[in-house]
Amino acid sequence: MKSKFEPKYPDYVARVEKSFSDQAVMKTIGASIEAISPGKIEIEFPYQSNLTQQNGFIHAGIVSTVLDSACGYAAFSLMPLDVSVLTIEFKINLLSPATGDRFRGYGKVKKAGRTISVAEAELYAFSDQGKKLVATMVGTLMAVSHG
Amino acid sequence: MKSKFEPKYPDYVARVEKSFSDQAVMKTIGASIEAISPGKIEIEFPYQSNLTQQNGFIHAGIVSTVLDSACGYAAFSLMPLDVSVLTIEFKINLLSPATGDRFRGYGKVKKAGRTISVAEAELYAFSDQGKKLVATMVGTLMAVSHG
Amino acid sequence: MKSKFEPKYPDYVARVEKSFSDQAVMKTIGASIEAISPGKIEIEFPYQSNLTQQNGFIHAGIVSTVLDSACGYAAFSLMPLDVSVLTIEFKINLLSPATGDRFRGYGKVKKAGRTISVAEAELYAFSDQGKKLVATMVGTLMAVSHG
Amino acid sequence: MKSKFEPKYPDYVARVEKSFSDQAVMKTIGASIEAISPGKIEIEFPYQSNLTQQNGFIHAGIVSTVLDSACGYAAFSLMPLDVSVLTIEFKINLLSPATGDRFRGYGKVKKAGRTISVAEAELYAFSDQGKKLVATMVGTLMAVSHG
Repeated sequence: MKSKFEPKYPDYVARVEKSFSDQAVMKTIGASIEAISPGKIEIEFPYQSNLTQQNGFIHAGIVSTVLDSACGYAAFSLMPLDVSVLTIEFKINLLSPATGDRFRGYGKVKKAGRTISVAEAELYAFSDQGKKLVATMVGTLMAVSHG
Repeated sequence: MKSKFEPKYPDYVARVEKSFSDQAVMKTIGASIEAISPGKIEIEFPYQSNLTQQNGFIHAGIVSTVLDSACGYAAFSLMPLDVSVLTIEFKINLLSPATGDRFRGYGKVKKAGRTISVAEAELYAFSDQGKKLVATMVGTLMAVSHG
Repeated sequence: MKSKFEPKYPDYVARVEKSFSDQAVMKTIGASIEAISPGKIEIEFPYQSNLTQQNGFIHAGIVSTVLDSACGYAAFSLMPLDVSVLTIEFKINLLSPATGDRFRGYGKVKKAGRTISVAEAELYAFSDQGKKLVATMVGTLMAVSHG
Repeated sequence: MKSKFEPKYPDYVARVEKSFSDQAVMKTIGASIEAISPGKIEIEFPYQSNLTQQNGFIHAGIVSTVLDSACGYAAFSLMPLDVSVLTIEFKINLLSPATGDRFRGYGKVKKAGRTISVAEAELYAFSDQGKKLVATMVGTLMAVSHG
């Protein structure tokens, strides 16, 4: 993963990983970070039957959970040390049923602003049949100063 | 809950409850239907520490899970017997941190179309300090014919 | 129009009207403010055949123009003197064709934050056949400090 | 512009151009099609002082007008002969002020479904200072059968 963005300080990977590991819901859904670079992140999780809607697909809200974290951490990877990241809003389009063995969300920053950042994310499903695009998200993130 | 909408057939409540009980993720997050009327639904769930983000708030994706089901079932309650409901897209605004003892999502139909419906939902948090608005959603739902 | 919101200073109406009159596009589409109260605004414009899409309906982008201004000025009416208002993003659902003699957009604030506000707006069409809901918008606005 | 999509019939360009020329608002804002390929379109318009908001930037609604047509015609280029295209909803993020000499919207299809298509569009501003990204849109389009 190449990137046009420069992180604000060298240790951005450790900071993203620390915050991610503090998201208890990521453990609940079995999600893990698979790649990080400045302004980009990949998060994967397996199919779990306790996360499904009425047809046995992964619920759109769980898809949103992973893509929101993907947008948030893509943006956070470019933020300075003294801020935390907050999701203001996001919009998701559901393009095909979330069926498959495992799912990977790809988040990347579209605009890294001082206060407001915009990130995009896509979720792909992987199975014996190959790879398919499940959903796309656009999210607006805010850098919140500490203290 | 009054309603300007008429259900397409008398047994809409049972149909919504059946589909809701088939959503395994609703059990996982401890959600239950608290009220149904034509074009409206209320879904409640308790705070659970395994559904949180890095600050101990309920993750925005879990908030989305409940509000998406609220939009979907509000729309489904007005649909004819031979269709199922599918979320095409939604957008959520996160207005305050999802802290509290329990949360209730209120879904209602804005437009009930033959193919496309639009629904809105709000999540309120309840605690000793009272009630606060956490998030608002707008969702687009599609009636999908069987067979 | 009652309101739960308090303006930050008495002259908010004049400030909103001044900014609105500086929006040249409002003259181009013939739009005018019909009502203002704290956190709320109504903007009206007539049908114009030079603003239409291929079926003779008002183009969704022109509907967005009025509703974006409605969201923005609803939010601006509650902002302090030393800031200006900026739209970060909005989402619009188009519920019925924009046909009619005249159209009125109703904007209202959902959350008035120090930096980020969220507003909602609806457009109604008026004709001999009565009134119909054409579109709904949710917008996120930012207060930008001067200097 | 390469494309992974196949048009449903050879004359899609003429059909898109015909519908575009029926959008009176495109003449009003001086917009023209600059490129079409299956699932993709480019629409350009010049800066006009009668389309501005209070700071002299092109109003976000006018940006939306062009990007909505870009999403719509990108989707329409892949639709069969016996349908027309309808925007159900869109969401736009405004990344930088719409200043410049001319603006070009790039629309492309993300998913071409039988009933529902999803398209994305970006608006770039061009001036002596070069090119900048002004806004991004995601839109949901519906194929509506005639008769």
